[in-house]
Amino acid sequence: MGIALELSKRITSMTYDDLPVEAVKWAKISFVDTIACALAAAGEDGPRIAEKALSFGGKSGGNCVIWGTDRRTVPLDAATINGTTAHALDYDDCSNSLAGHPSAALLPASIALGEELRASGRDVILAYVTGFEAQSKVAHAVHLHHYEKGWHPTSTIGIFGATAACAKLFKLDAEHTATALAIACSLSSGIKANFGTMTKPLHAGECTRNGMYAALLAKDGFTACPEAFEHKQGFFEVFNGAGNYNAANTLASWCDPYEVLAPGVGLKQYPCCGSTHSAIDAMISLREKHNLRPKEVVKIESVTHDRALAHTDRPFPRSTLDAKFSVQYCVARALMHGDVTFEHFEGTAYTDPEVQKLLRIIETRPHAHRPKGMYEHFQGEVIVTTKDGRKLSARVDQPLRGPKNAAPPDRLESKFRDCAAKAIVPGAIQKLYDALQSVENAKDIREVTNLLAESVKSPQAGKAKSIAVA
Amino acid sequence: MGIALELSKRITSMTYDDLPVEAVKWAKISFVDTIACALAAAGEDGPRIAEKALSFGGKSGGNCVIWGTDRRTVPLDAATINGTTAHALDYDDCSNSLAGHPSAALLPASIALGEELRASGRDVILAYVTGFEAQSKVAHAVHLHHYEKGWHPTSTIGIFGATAACAKLFKLDAEHTATALAIACSLSSGIKANFGTMTKPLHAGECTRNGMYAALLAKDGFTACPEAFEHKQGFFEVFNGAGNYNAANTLASWCDPYEVLAPGVGLKQYPCCGSTHSAIDAMISLREKHNLRPKEVVKIESVTHDRALAHTDRPFPRSTLDAKFSVQYCVARALMHGDVTFEHFEGTAYTDPEVQKLLRIIETRPHAHRPKGMYEHFQGEVIVTTKDGRKLSARVDQPLRGPKNAAPPDRLESKFRDCAAKAIVPGAIQKLYDALQSVENAKDIREVTNLLAESVKSPQAGKAKSIAVA
Repeated sequence: MGIALELSKRITSMTYDDLPVEAVKWAKISFVDTIACALAAAGEDGPRIAEKALSFGGKSGGNCVIWGTDRRTVPLDAATINGTTAHALDYDDCSNSLAGHPSAALLPASIALGEELRASGRDVILAYVTGFEAQSKVAHAVHLHHYEKGWHPTSTIGIFGATAACAKLFKLDAEHTATALAIACSLSSGIKANFGTMTKPLHAGECTRNGMYAALLAKDGFTACPEAFEHKQGFFEVFNGAGNYNAANTLASWCDPYEVLAPGVGLKQYPCCGSTHSAIDAMISLREKHNLRPKEVVKIESVTHDRALAHTDRPFPRSTLDAKFSVQYCVARALMHGDVTFEHFEGTAYTDPEVQKLLRIIETRPHAHRPKGMYEHFQGEVIVTTKDGRKLSARVDQPLRGPKNAAPPDRLESKFRDCAAKAIVPGAIQKLYDALQSVENAKDIREVTNLLAESVKSPQAGKAKSIAVA
Repeated sequence: MGIALELSKRITSMTYDDLPVEAVKWAKISFVDTIACALAAAGEDGPRIAEKALSFGGKSGGNCVIWGTDRRTVPLDAATINGTTAHALDYDDCSNSLAGHPSAALLPASIALGEELRASGRDVILAYVTGFEAQSKVAHAVHLHHYEKGWHPTSTIGIFGATAACAKLFKLDAEHTATALAIACSLSSGIKANFGTMTKPLHAGECTRNGMYAALLAKDGFTACPEAFEHKQGFFEVFNGAGNYNAANTLASWCDPYEVLAPGVGLKQYPCCGSTHSAIDAMISLREKHNLRPKEVVKIESVTHDRALAHTDRPFPRSTLDAKFSVQYCVARALMHGDVTFEHFEGTAYTDPEVQKLLRIIETRPHAHRPKGMYEHFQGEVIVTTKDGRKLSARVDQPLRGPKNAAPPDRLESKFRDCAAKAIVPGAIQKLYDALQSVENAKDIREVTNLLAESVKSPQAGKAKSIAVA
C-alpha cells in the first residue's frame, strides 16, 4: 500500500473527541498568534499586491474574510492572501519538526474552507491538529537535508498539512485524501533564495491555497499517482534524492506524542527570522548584564549554526524584508534598544546611520563545532569587544518560545494586543481575543471571522498606501 | 549582474518586426496545434474538474474564453483551465530543448492575458516566440539532468516561458521582468511520478497560470531575489544540485538561431506520450512491410532509451491516461490497427481482451548502448517473433514530427479538423483554422477567441458528463 494512503488512513481516523485538552489549547494559541501576525501585517504591500493580482480581470464575491480588512473573497483566494499576510512579518509561529512556519501554511486554508462550509470551531481545530501532524510526519522523512538544500519547508512540506486539513474539512475518505496528497506532491514549491523578499511570505500563501486546491480536485475525482511520495520519480527522490530521506518516518509515531505538543510551536518574540533569535537574546542579556551601549563597543562577533547562517548572513540589508533575515542587523538593533520591534523593519529604518555604523563592526561565523543534534541549530553566541578592551560574551541555546521553553502566558496576550492594534478598533481587541480563545464553542467559524471583519478600523484598514485594491 | 536581469534584457529587446517570417509561421503552427489538442480534450474530466474547483465558492465573470466551451472567466483561471485542457490528451507539441511541451505551458497564458489586455495577434505571437526562447534557454542550463531526475520540465521550466510571455504582454521593463522570473523560481513545481494521471496536464495549467501570476505580482511592485537562479539556495542549486547545471547556457545564443526554428517543435501524430512514438512508428512500418497481424505474433520486444523507458514502462495500464504512457500498450495498438488514435484512449479501451493478450507477450528493455547525443533519446526499435519462427525488426531514429523531420503540411490541417470536430460545429472549423493561420492580422486577439467561443457545438459542448460546471 502506498504511503499516501497509509498516511490518509491516519488522517481520516482523527476525531475531535480524541484530542487531548492540551492539544486543543495549543491549537488555539496558534490561532491567536497567527491571526495576530496577520492583523499586524494587513497594511504591508506584499499581501495587498497579491490581493490585487488575484482580482485581475474581475472580482468575485465570496464568503471568506480577508484578514485585517472587511473584504471577503472566494476560499482559494482568501487562503493565498491570508497565508501571505500571516507570514508577511516573519513573526508567526515556528515548528522544529517542520523547520518552518506551520500555522501560516495551515490555518488560512483551514479557516477559509471552514467559512465556506460553515464548519464549526471544533471542525477547524480538528483540521488544524490533523494537518499539523501530517506535515510534521512528512517533514521527519525529509529533514534536515531538505532544509539545508534550500527548500522552504513552510511551503514545500506545509502544503501537505493544508491538504490534510482541507481533506478533513471536506470529510474525504482515505482514498480521496491520498489522491489529494499525491496531487500536492506536484504543487509543492518554494526556494530559500527568495528569503528576505515578499516572495517568502507568498510561499505560505501559495502552499495553503494549493493544499485546498488539491483537496478540491481530489474530492471531484481528479487522479494522481498512488505512489507519488515513494515513486522513483516521486516527491522523496525528486526533492531530496536517493539516500537523503527516510520514507518510513512518514508513518511512524502518529500522534504519539501529538506534534502540536511535542515539539509543538515556538512563538516568536521578535518580528524577524527565527534563526536570528538566539543571537538577539544573547545580545539583550549581555546589554542588560553589563549595561552596554553602542558607543562603548568596537567589535561584535555573532556565532550561530551554519544551517541558520546560510540564510541570515546579510551584512548590509537592502530592504526592510532583507533586514528581517540579517542576523547582523537584528543583533545591532538588540544592542541599540534591548529589544527588536516592528519599527525596526518599517520604512527606511534599515538605513539609519547608527545601525549602519554598528553593521560595519559586526562579524559573523558559524559554530566551530556543529552541535550534534539534528534540531539543535538555535544556539547563538555574541562576543563583544569594548573600547576599554574588555571581551564580553553570552550564549543562548534555545530562544524563549516553545512548549518546552515557553514564554510567560501574558506574552501571547500582549503580542496579540500589539499586533491587533494595527488593524482592529481598540474596543474590539479583547472581544476578538476571547472569541479566538474559545473558538471551540463556535457552531459556525463565521461567528469568529465575522467579528474579525466587523472590527477593522475602517473600510480602508489594511490597505497599503501604494496599492489600490478596489 | 544577475542572470534574471540579463535574461530579461534579452526578453525586453524582442520586437515583432525583428521576427523572421519562418518564426511567425512556426508560432502559428503551434497555435493551430495547441488549440486543436484543447478542442479535442474539452470533454475530458480533468479540465472540467479543474474548472469546477476554480469556481468553488463563487463564480466570477471574465473576458477569457475557456477553450472548447462558450464560457469565459478571469485570466488566471482561464490559463489554468486551458493549459490543463491543451495537455489533457498528451497530443500537443513537444520541444527537444525543453524536453517537454512548450506550447501548453506558454500559449494559454499568452492568449488569456492577450484577451484581457486586448492585445493584437502580433503581440501574442511576439509573446509566444519570446517565451519559447526564454524557457528553452533555462532548459539548456539544467538539462538533461533535470529531466532524468524526475522533474516535469513542461512545468518546472515552462513556467519561465509563460512568465516571459506575460511580462512581454504587460510591456514590463527589464527590472520588473527579472523580478517576475525570480518569483517564478519559487512557483516552479511538477514531478514525473504523476505522469499517466490527470495531474500531468494540470502541471501545464499550473505553470502557465503561475507565469502570468508572477508577471502580475512583479508589475505591481512585488519583490524577489535578483539572484534567484544562481543563488546558493536558488533555482539551479535547489532543483538540480551542484555540478548538475551550466548557468551560462541561460544567456548563450539568444535567438541564434531562434528556438522556435531550431530545434523547433515536434507535432505529435499520435495522442500519447512522445517517448512511445518511435516504437509506434517502428511497429507500423514493420506491420506494413510484412503485412503483420496480431494472430501471427508470439513475442514483441520494444527497445527504447532508458530515459524514455523510465516513465513509459507500464506493462498493464490502469486507466486511459496510464495507457498513454505505456509503450507496451501503444505498440500493441500500433500492431492491431496500423495507427494509434483517440478511441484507443477512451472509456475502457485499455481493457480490450485483444490488446490485453498482446500486452502479455511484449517485453521492454533499454538500448544496450545509450545513444551518445544529449537529445538522441527518441530512437525506438521493435523486434517481433512470429508463429512461423521469423524474427522481424524495425528501427526509427526520430519520429516524424519536427521542423527537421516535419510531417507533410496537410497533416496539421487534418489533425486540426479531427480534433476540432469534437467541440466545434462542422461549418465553423475551416473559418477557425483560417483565423488561427492569419492571427497576425487580428487587431485584437478577441476576434479569434470570440470565434472559438461562438463555434462550439452547443452550450453543453466541452462539458464532461460526470462533472457539472454550472
